[in-house]
Amino acid sequence: MEDLKKDMDDFFLLTNAIFVSFMQAGFACLESGAVRTKNSLNIIMKNLLDLLICAVFYYITGYTLAYEDGNSFLGYSRWAGYGFEESKLAYWFFQFIFAATAATIISGAVAERCNFVAYIVYSGLISGVVYPIVSHWAWHQDGWLRNMGYSDFAGCGVVHALAGVCSFVAAALLGPRIGRFSNGKPKEIPGHSLPLVGVGALLLISGFLAFNGGSLGHITQPGDSETVARSMFSTIVGGSGGATVSLILGRVGMYGPSPWPFSPTLNAALAGMVSVCGAPEAYATWAAFLCGAIGCLIYFALHRLVLFLKVDDPLDTVAVHFGAGVWGVFARALLSQEGLIYADPNALNLLLHNAIGVFAIICWSAVTSIILFGSLKLLGLLRISEEEELKGLDISKHGETSYPSSAWGWYNDTVEFYPENGGTFKMKREYDNHAFQLEKRNQEI
Amino acid sequence: MEDLKKDMDDFFLLTNAIFVSFMQAGFACLESGAVRTKNSLNIIMKNLLDLLICAVFYYITGYTLAYEDGNSFLGYSRWAGYGFEESKLAYWFFQFIFAATAATIISGAVAERCNFVAYIVYSGLISGVVYPIVSHWAWHQDGWLRNMGYSDFAGCGVVHALAGVCSFVAAALLGPRIGRFSNGKPKEIPGHSLPLVGVGALLLISGFLAFNGGSLGHITQPGDSETVARSMFSTIVGGSGGATVSLILGRVGMYGPSPWPFSPTLNAALAGMVSVCGAPEAYATWAAFLCGAIGCLIYFALHRLVLFLKVDDPLDTVAVHFGAGVWGVFARALLSQEGLIYADPNALNLLLHNAIGVFAIICWSAVTSIILFGSLKLLGLLRISEEEELKGLDISKHGETSYPSSAWGWYNDTVEFYPENGGTFKMKREYDNHAFQLEKRNQEI
Amino acid sequence: MEDLKKDMDDFFLLTNAIFVSFMQAGFACLESGAVRTKNSLNIIMKNLLDLLICAVFYYITGYTLAYEDGNSFLGYSRWAGYGFEESKLAYWFFQFIFAATAATIISGAVAERCNFVAYIVYSGLISGVVYPIVSHWAWHQDGWLRNMGYSDFAGCGVVHALAGVCSFVAAALLGPRIGRFSNGKPKEIPGHSLPLVGVGALLLISGFLAFNGGSLGHITQPGDSETVARSMFSTIVGGSGGATVSLILGRVGMYGPSPWPFSPTLNAALAGMVSVCGAPEAYATWAAFLCGAIGCLIYFALHRLVLFLKVDDPLDTVAVHFGAGVWGVFARALLSQEGLIYADPNALNLLLHNAIGVFAIICWSAVTSIILFGSLKLLGLLRISEEEELKGLDISKHGETSYPSSAWGWYNDTVEFYPENGGTFKMKREYDNHAFQLEKRNQEI
Repeated sequence: MEDLKKDMDDFFLLTNAIFVSFMQAGFACLESGAVRTKNSLNIIMKNLLDLLICAVFYYITGYTLAYEDGNSFLGYSRWAGYGFEESKLAYWFFQFIFAATAATIISGAVAERCNFVAYIVYSGLISGVVYPIVSHWAWHQDGWLRNMGYSDFAGCGVVHALAGVCSFVAAALLGPRIGRFSNGKPKEIPGHSLPLVGVGALLLISGFLAFNGGSLGHITQPGDSETVARSMFSTIVGGSGGATVSLILGRVGMYGPSPWPFSPTLNAALAGMVSVCGAPEAYATWAAFLCGAIGCLIYFALHRLVLFLKVDDPLDTVAVHFGAGVWGVFARALLSQEGLIYADPNALNLLLHNAIGVFAIICWSAVTSIILFGSLKLLGLLRISEEEELKGLDISKHGETSYPSSAWGWYNDTVEFYPENGGTFKMKREYDNHAFQLEKRNQEI
Repeated sequence: MEDLKKDMDDFFLLTNAIFVSFMQAGFACLESGAVRTKNSLNIIMKNLLDLLICAVFYYITGYTLAYEDGNSFLGYSRWAGYGFEESKLAYWFFQFIFAATAATIISGAVAERCNFVAYIVYSGLISGVVYPIVSHWAWHQDGWLRNMGYSDFAGCGVVHALAGVCSFVAAALLGPRIGRFSNGKPKEIPGHSLPLVGVGALLLISGFLAFNGGSLGHITQPGDSETVARSMFSTIVGGSGGATVSLILGRVGMYGPSPWPFSPTLNAALAGMVSVCGAPEAYATWAAFLCGAIGCLIYFALHRLVLFLKVDDPLDTVAVHFGAGVWGVFARALLSQEGLIYADPNALNLLLHNAIGVFAIICWSAVTSIILFGSLKLLGLLRISEEEELKGLDISKHGETSYPSSAWGWYNDTVEFYPENGGTFKMKREYDNHAFQLEKRNQEI
Repeated sequence: MEDLKKDMDDFFLLTNAIFVSFMQAGFACLESGAVRTKNSLNIIMKNLLDLLICAVFYYITGYTLAYEDGNSFLGYSRWAGYGFEESKLAYWFFQFIFAATAATIISGAVAERCNFVAYIVYSGLISGVVYPIVSHWAWHQDGWLRNMGYSDFAGCGVVHALAGVCSFVAAALLGPRIGRFSNGKPKEIPGHSLPLVGVGALLLISGFLAFNGGSLGHITQPGDSETVARSMFSTIVGGSGGATVSLILGRVGMYGPSPWPFSPTLNAALAGMVSVCGAPEAYATWAAFLCGAIGCLIYFALHRLVLFLKVDDPLDTVAVHFGAGVWGVFARALLSQEGLIYADPNALNLLLHNAIGVFAIICWSAVTSIILFGSLKLLGLLRISEEEELKGLDISKHGETSYPSSAWGWYNDTVEFYPENGGTFKMKREYDNHAFQLEKRNQEI
């Protein structure tokens, strides 16, 4: 019976790990659609390598630092899997997928201008050192945050606030993309495929259900399935709260003339889901909705603040993950069933401990990422050259383009243009390039 | 042991709920690819909000009407989760995902011309009232259809026929898109990305396996896994039947000159899968194939009928979901292992009860959607203005475009055009827009 | 208790089957992005039909040949499900999804020039006859390879080497695409959407986890979950090894001027994952990494060899699946925990038996596919005509185009062109085509 339970718990962890791994495809869609064509391969490659590089770094140092025996600050035994108990491997795998997700979040903030070498270095160090140490604090039985009383169910602080701080530091040190702030005023640089962004957001939502639900880590103890179901439900409802507020903000004109904005609503829905990560298992439905709704307001405010600071964050990573992440840590002590709103006698303590916890996480991630990205900058490795940025990372670093024009054939269609100075300009297009060459060859023979 | 079984049943429900949630990404791909670029964000936003809005409405009224205590027509206790038993939450979540799917289906029929406010209203009311009441009839232990003897395993009538009727009413009341019927003859308005349509169909197929398989609702009773496996297998085989007939129809010239049509075959495969929804657990393999094959013929006939009626249904929602849905309710009494073909003594009764059931569902959904969409029309809220339609919903409602041209850079490539009046027109393109600006700036300095 | 275990094992199989079914969406993205627009619907249609056609053929003959009673070479009882035990259906379903994947792999090698009829025939015969017989050899308890001592956990030889050989034969008999080798030198024919390729690769990775993990076939025996977790972990780490070597190869200039190539790295990651398929449950972490790394080198060498042989393999199917597949069969006897590197006393035997096994698989698949594709070629059914190839398969076989230009509207934007001979060419575009017609109509009235 115990064997069966162990197998079922691992089955649960592995199933959720696969669901969460679909978030990498979601991020790939979201991020590549949100950048220009000249950089969209670069960002997909980052998503791919996040999984693959992170596996190595998390194996060598990450898991040890996070979940092996050590002191209250970090683990320091069984490095690189030496002496690792095979029976913990499903747990390991689930935690690794979490770590890869943390690293992926940052790729949005450094999009379109970060050097590829810098990416490999920071991706490895964040998933192999920076993030694992914080997860030790909060989730290992010896962790000082956990023993102090810090409580964070699915990584609101550990994953999202941390990744948000690293994103902010990285974006600030990188500087804005060419043309992002001309004459001191922000200028939108739209992404090349918003349908891809939308599909990515939908994949992220599906993965998020498993991210929050799977965080319980087991499914065979009495009441487990209720906890998991509540976590998943809160995730959706948090997203509802975020999206609802965003639609209202749009309707009252906060986004300019557009009544029902697309990209901000996607981000607001994601911010709502991030907001509830701190206590998805412990919110009443109305509380999850409210938590997501406030998360949207924070996202909205922080989006403006980041722009005001002239920090260029192409995917709004800071506003979504830092803003909603920090809020969510407090929300656990305010709105959850162990929170102030229920007059729980321990709620004030929890509020204090969560405040200390998220403050410690912010300090840790700020210091480590200033060292990390600062060193890369001093070494001249952080940002690509102006020429490379103009050409785009795809050509200059990867030697390929997203949509090679020679592959976009046509057949027998007429396109009409209407030049500015009046008149009509008709173009008949037949077959594709290869066909043209062949037809010419045939005519010459 | 019972605790473990409960946990495993819920694990099964939640896993399948996540799989079904991927259908929203599938619908987003399918529908946004099937409309023009100027409306493709609008339809993705609908898919996103279906999940998020539906969660709220299904929570407040939907689940009560469907599955709480009441009379044989509807439930009327524990509104808005008040007094809700937490142990039913996994079940709740699975049912909510079903409701969201029902609402999503309709978005295809109203594509490219429905007002956004109208969408929010109908989406909430259908997932919060119209659909839940029918699911009470058919699936709650007090439901009058269930107690009469109506049998519908995965919602052939409850989900698909209902959504199909609402789609027809909505499309008819909206009227056709500008240019759809010029001089009384239908004119194709192709979608902008058929590869996206195809990827969407494949995601839907994967999700459909869980939709039909998960409908059993539990996995720990003896024989459960066979039932689930059979349901999933029937789903695929129903799709095989639909696709096979479609390929034959194409080959014999029913689709015009094209021998192996793409879009109709996708739709036929989906229609085949819808067809078996009534009894996926109870078909022999040949019966599932035959059921899907007939579903394709009905899809094909209904597609023509809808065109003949000059109703503009951009995604063929009526033909796929209404046609195959109604057929599938009858097919249970004809082809399944409790059907006429096996000379089951109760089959005639089943046929009668399923006929009454699907008739009741059609009447209910027709009346409610005439009231719903009719009211919206009378209030002038149903359809966007002609100018907005010409501009597209993306610009006029969401302030964004799918593929902003400024994001589509190029680098150092030469494109040749061949104008109608002969000769060659060469264009050398270098860098992207930002590069141009920079180069000009440099020259000016 | 036994009933529960049975249900849980089946639940495990069915869940993994759905995950693997997402690989079809992954292949659709990968392959359609990797071909030109004029053929991208054709290849998606193949992916769709692989699932649907394969279900029928695998039902009629495939499962019998593979897993029903017979002799050591093939099964020959319970054809077409007659007498099939329903309790095996979940297992059946998982095996069917495997078979569909094997057939899908080949579609990459024949892309852009294979006749649609030929595709239907080969797809049915490979998933219904060629592949099942090999899976009988290796995985049925009476299979001669299995009883000899051949060991192949997740189909390194059975799925990948087999599909790779069929791909090579098919591509060689088809001949190269027009323009692929002009004046004897290979000319790249890039795909039309590399972001789609990247998203596809990420979906494939998620599916691959279930493909290798699910291969165990059960989850309720003591130690099962460790085995599954190790299989999934090895899959990722194998991909890490492949990608790492590819990045190094790029950095030292083996791919020409591009330092961090995109497409080769995707393929290398996939090759790494294929490499570990032979023993994902039995590799230490370092061994999985090394195995994937060597798999990348073999992929790289084979990619060049195939080009040298002037065989046109658009998706590098031979290099990825044949190369890494054959290597992986040997790797089990070399690097796994029952391999030479651990000085296992049976390792030499295993090496010999696996060598014999993969040799037998290569011979079998070469002979059967020469007969199959050779017959199709003699009948004139294998390849489309030159005119059809120039037009593209989408128009000539399916009557549709991927991106209909009429659906790509615009609104109020100005595009600047810079013709070769200097000067600027500005074009103001307003509304979309329909709008133009309407504006004209209004002016005429």
